[in-house]
Amino acid sequence: MPKRPYNFYAGPAVLPHEVLEQAQAEITDFKGIGLSLMEISHRSPEYEEIHNETQHLFKELLQLPEGYHVLFLPGGASLQFSMIPMNLLVPGKVANYILTGVWADKAIEEARKVGDVYVSYSGKTNNFTEMPSLKDIQVHAQTDAYLHITSNETVNGTQFHNFPAIRNVPVIADMSSDILSRPLDASKFAFIYAGAQKNLGPAGVTIVILREELIQHHTAPLPAMLDYRTYIKHNSLYNTPPVYSIYMVNLVLKWIKRSGGLSVLEKRNEEKARLIYDTLDQSGGFYRGFAQPASRSLMNITFKVWNDELEKLFFQEANTQGFVGLEGHRSLGHIRASVYNAMPYEACQALADFMKDFQRRYR
Amino acid sequence: MPKRPYNFYAGPAVLPHEVLEQAQAEITDFKGIGLSLMEISHRSPEYEEIHNETQHLFKELLQLPEGYHVLFLPGGASLQFSMIPMNLLVPGKVANYILTGVWADKAIEEARKVGDVYVSYSGKTNNFTEMPSLKDIQVHAQTDAYLHITSNETVNGTQFHNFPAIRNVPVIADMSSDILSRPLDASKFAFIYAGAQKNLGPAGVTIVILREELIQHHTAPLPAMLDYRTYIKHNSLYNTPPVYSIYMVNLVLKWIKRSGGLSVLEKRNEEKARLIYDTLDQSGGFYRGFAQPASRSLMNITFKVWNDELEKLFFQEANTQGFVGLEGHRSLGHIRASVYNAMPYEACQALADFMKDFQRRYR
Repeated sequence: MPKRPYNFYAGPAVLPHEVLEQAQAEITDFKGIGLSLMEISHRSPEYEEIHNETQHLFKELLQLPEGYHVLFLPGGASLQFSMIPMNLLVPGKVANYILTGVWADKAIEEARKVGDVYVSYSGKTNNFTEMPSLKDIQVHAQTDAYLHITSNETVNGTQFHNFPAIRNVPVIADMSSDILSRPLDASKFAFIYAGAQKNLGPAGVTIVILREELIQHHTAPLPAMLDYRTYIKHNSLYNTPPVYSIYMVNLVLKWIKRSGGLSVLEKRNEEKARLIYDTLDQSGGFYRGFAQPASRSLMNITFKVWNDELEKLFFQEANTQGFVGLEGHRSLGHIRASVYNAMPYEACQALADFMKDFQRRYR
Repeated sequence: MPKRPYNFYAGPAVLPHEVLEQAQAEITDFKGIGLSLMEISHRSPEYEEIHNETQHLFKELLQLPEGYHVLFLPGGASLQFSMIPMNLLVPGKVANYILTGVWADKAIEEARKVGDVYVSYSGKTNNFTEMPSLKDIQVHAQTDAYLHITSNETVNGTQFHNFPAIRNVPVIADMSSDILSRPLDASKFAFIYAGAQKNLGPAGVTIVILREELIQHHTAPLPAMLDYRTYIKHNSLYNTPPVYSIYMVNLVLKWIKRSGGLSVLEKRNEEKARLIYDTLDQSGGFYRGFAQPASRSLMNITFKVWNDELEKLFFQEANTQGFVGLEGHRSLGHIRASVYNAMPYEACQALADFMKDFQRRYR
């Protein structure tokens, strides 16, 4: 048994242990002020520094070009599923969605409540085991309000490994489960969003990165809290933001920077995922991956044991050996190992070792 | 100088120190599981227990009658300003708002974007120094979708000290700045809401307490995250809730229970506020309270020094003597001492002593 469990939860998910230790050290007395950051004004200089620094760290890590805003929103990616069409699906246009799994499907469902939507690609025919190739992604510059993609499907374990360069239609990406896991050409996107609770920090804040010009067309009056212009105008301080969640994101971003940035994390994420994918591929069918190899996610590794009874036993034994969070999403079932940025290599090694040992004993 | 500053911030605001210490002890290892509560699934048994227990604690402390739901929402009271009319301002009806200050005004502004609103009472004529008397509160059972009041105006420092018993129109109350500060006859309200960051915990979660029957009339399709039925149906677990904020609220509610409950807190709050109000009243006009005595808030005490230059000096000296957060809201200015549940008696005593000393030296 490890000292701490191997944490494979899909989200909220593993945080860097040194980040939690720093939070612990500072929770009752933030930087020597004698108060917790949780109990001081969001307009205090102490909090404002965290707020602005966090935005700056996103800009730096993602090397955002000029003209992008970093906003902090409530409500998770799920609220973005509605806010995006409310703000950007202007009358006379149609929203173009790429359907790649459970999360894209939810985004589409909410967009349909707001306006006209079409699904220009559906992975239903391949049971959502594949991401589309770039040539499958079609836009219509005259009529598309935007193109919406989901960069990583957490439930299915599929991921885009490259992104189309579309200049005549704004591209919007839900990156909730793979943001900051690899370098990104942000200029390909007009709008990126991510709930924090996978790669960024605890649940409670959603990051929206958008290009200023994107929201200039919209004129309809929207509720203040559902209008991106409110967040831009007030620097995400129109009302009290989720201060502590943003602070935790701040600590995680600094940890990423200390770790060497996105290129280093990408390499590490590839190595971690390879440990497990190689184990699947070399198991002679004992373990079976869900995603097609070319679409495999480096964040969420979905697979099953060839025999359902053995799979139950797999969960039982994994549990007693200190692995937690391996149960797949209730809509897909089977096994899912989520190996986000903060997941240590050693935990992936331990899982691969356990898988091999389990196979040896039960094949 | 005190060991820790006297924290008079209006929100986010002082938390019980023992709650922060417990959070500190548990932040890297929640109840011996070896993981932080921040990094485990919102569907794990460990979190579900916190979630359900927090709802139960609200029901217990407020002695909620049968038929009320306790929901956890994102976006602060500001998002409720829009969600309430989106869900409850049915076509053909009008929303009745009581205008008592900055926060009621914001609620009205957002409701007007959604539907028909009328302001049946406005405190503008008394410069928002008074709350209406119960006879000033009029409803029209045939046409009012609901009556909306703000139980405590944080900026102005005014508070309702009793509530009307209206049975033929649903009464909705924004209790963001005084929830759980005193016993309440919850049956007078169809809907109570409160951002956490004053009396309940850190910013990041909003409590909504509503009577089930209130939302049965509504049939229009709403975005999932903006529809109260989503939160009821999924027990506020439709998407990932702000787990850690809810955990902190849980600890604060247990602290309230340990402290003796709402009657004990009410008595303590009265004593704390009296220390400061008595100092104003006995200053012979050196300090001048903003609110009319009958409407004075036990949570936010607003006042000024008779002379603006002296007031600047007051802030300077208060600051060097360890008082923080005394600056009034930017829309009103002057001095505001926020003395929520978690504010220790000793801090109020220290402020009263400082005020007397300051007056002695500068009168």
